[in-house]
Amino acid sequence: MTHPTDNRTLLRLLGIEKPIIQAPMAGVSTPALAAAVSNAGGLGSLGVGAMNAEGARKVIKETRALTAKPFNINVFCHSPAMSNEAVESQWLKWLAPHFEKYGATPPASLWEIYTSFLADPDMVEVFLEEKPAVVSFHFGLPTAEVIADLKKAGIKLLGAATNVHEAAQVAAAGVDAIVAQGIEAGGHRGVFDPALDDRLGTFALTRLLVKAFSLPVIAAGGIMDGAGIAAALALGAQAAQLGTAFVACPETSIDDGYRRALLGDAARRTTFTSGISGRIARSMVNKFTELASDANAPKTPEYPIAYDAGKSLHAAAKAKGEFGYGAQWAGQAAALARSLPAAELVAQLERELKESVRELQPLLG
Amino acid sequence: MTHPTDNRTLLRLLGIEKPIIQAPMAGVSTPALAAAVSNAGGLGSLGVGAMNAEGARKVIKETRALTAKPFNINVFCHSPAMSNEAVESQWLKWLAPHFEKYGATPPASLWEIYTSFLADPDMVEVFLEEKPAVVSFHFGLPTAEVIADLKKAGIKLLGAATNVHEAAQVAAAGVDAIVAQGIEAGGHRGVFDPALDDRLGTFALTRLLVKAFSLPVIAAGGIMDGAGIAAALALGAQAAQLGTAFVACPETSIDDGYRRALLGDAARRTTFTSGISGRIARSMVNKFTELASDANAPKTPEYPIAYDAGKSLHAAAKAKGEFGYGAQWAGQAAALARSLPAAELVAQLERELKESVRELQPLLG
Repeated sequence: MTHPTDNRTLLRLLGIEKPIIQAPMAGVSTPALAAAVSNAGGLGSLGVGAMNAEGARKVIKETRALTAKPFNINVFCHSPAMSNEAVESQWLKWLAPHFEKYGATPPASLWEIYTSFLADPDMVEVFLEEKPAVVSFHFGLPTAEVIADLKKAGIKLLGAATNVHEAAQVAAAGVDAIVAQGIEAGGHRGVFDPALDDRLGTFALTRLLVKAFSLPVIAAGGIMDGAGIAAALALGAQAAQLGTAFVACPETSIDDGYRRALLGDAARRTTFTSGISGRIARSMVNKFTELASDANAPKTPEYPIAYDAGKSLHAAAKAKGEFGYGAQWAGQAAALARSLPAAELVAQLERELKESVRELQPLLG
Repeated sequence: MTHPTDNRTLLRLLGIEKPIIQAPMAGVSTPALAAAVSNAGGLGSLGVGAMNAEGARKVIKETRALTAKPFNINVFCHSPAMSNEAVESQWLKWLAPHFEKYGATPPASLWEIYTSFLADPDMVEVFLEEKPAVVSFHFGLPTAEVIADLKKAGIKLLGAATNVHEAAQVAAAGVDAIVAQGIEAGGHRGVFDPALDDRLGTFALTRLLVKAFSLPVIAAGGIMDGAGIAAALALGAQAAQLGTAFVACPETSIDDGYRRALLGDAARRTTFTSGISGRIARSMVNKFTELASDANAPKTPEYPIAYDAGKSLHAAAKAKGEFGYGAQWAGQAAALARSLPAAELVAQLERELKESVRELQPLLG
């Protein structure tokens, strides 16, 4: 199969004007960000993976108050964490000196600080009641029953995939479009099983999925500007999803340390770490990624149990003015990030996209 | 700096018509392949990194007999290997049972089976005498003196880079263009120091280099068709370099096992291994990559000393009909490989490139 010759089906399906999707980014996105992107003609997104159902309902309502346009709500579909007290207490013991450095003590124990969508019927209920235009899945897929219910409610569905095998599952589940998320992406890629990570680059992944599936593909990972969006579309994607490009928008909820890092030299180098959350994610190199790369580190607790410790350590250090233990997620092209209001950024991205397409014209001879 | 608005400077500089470069691929490329690509309007390339100076002279003459067009000769600029007899004999001991399986015994000792360009004044001499139109550097750069001599001889120079830091060295050396080689690429990427590998995807790397340098950028890694070339150009590259896309051309020197793997199911999964050559490279998953991923494997000898053992084991197994120990290098999008004569493939790539650019037209509104 090749991609449909009509490469606007996705935009019509989602009810948007521009092939630009702001990535959900739990902990970074806000109703103001998502609404600004949607009002500008793209698809704004909100990650609610770290919220409970009522928290999600609240931000959906807040976003709806700011825009009448479609927006996307993203949930985490990982296997619920298996607690292991021995692993967790070893981890806390190992982190203790770092807490001490900032005059704090580690928590006595760790919790699964948020619930997988797979085990959260209340979240499904909220979606069926609030009916966001779009819901997207990360780390896997919910049951066929949940998917059928969401579709019956008129909600359009997106599923992230990082290789052909995952994409086949997304397609088989009846989801409307595949988010092809390459290795360049910041934060946690949507890998279903972290033990089976092919680490495909965005370029290869996008083209493989476009050629293998008739479903619309959305390219994600390392896309920072209109030239990147043009490249994604040239590869046959129907839209591009940008995360890191939006992180420095004033509408996000990031702290000053994260913002300074992203707009400074730290953005020149990202690395994979599983020490912050318990699941591999791409972060700017900082004190936490360096700590977690210690060869003598004990086994990391499961995701998101380790994140409980990670967030506590960040809070302790930050209270003393040290921002280097934050989850400073960023993609490989973070050095190209800009700090513009989201609506301006979307307009700028569209201008750049057209400019890039215009520059290709001479090839037509 | 942004990329020059005239995005044809590279084609004029290299004296080619199409923004298509066939990657050098030592051990795969042949004079027939390089000449066919150059005759078709692209830039054919020959990897001579595994040859001595007289071998290189021979293939340069053979290629010249087949084309009057410019072609590219590629050399390896790695630090010469440091032999370690203990490591090498341990490695051979560990491989012995695998040789035995095919009725063979491992070699008694291992050699640095080819010389780095950094330590090969005879190769420099051959280039100054034969004056190939283009010479490209992989794994690093030669001295300023050698670069000056090659330039004085009218030879155009390309240098591979896998991150901004390496690209800055390529630019400072006075090379004419940068080959931005992303993580998708098959075989050995041009990383200068394998201990400092940022593993950037082609998408992020290409855009970072285009934005950071005024030198023309050639995108490489995971590009398999005209849509990929269009995407590379949209990112601001002035040409695309394709390796795996050309491996199955009838003009290459690969064996039947490699060809069957590339055109079959094995192409669906590639992996990094340093067990075959002593330096990390992307291969289709096969018996050798599985063997080398054994957690109990001893330390691998340095590149290319380990390759001596690797080639011996492959020869022993192949003599018994087992092709699975070959260096079956392939990029992440290998599943898109086609078996076409090189001239037809170049023509097809150009048609696809134009078609992709045409499909972007509606974006101009």
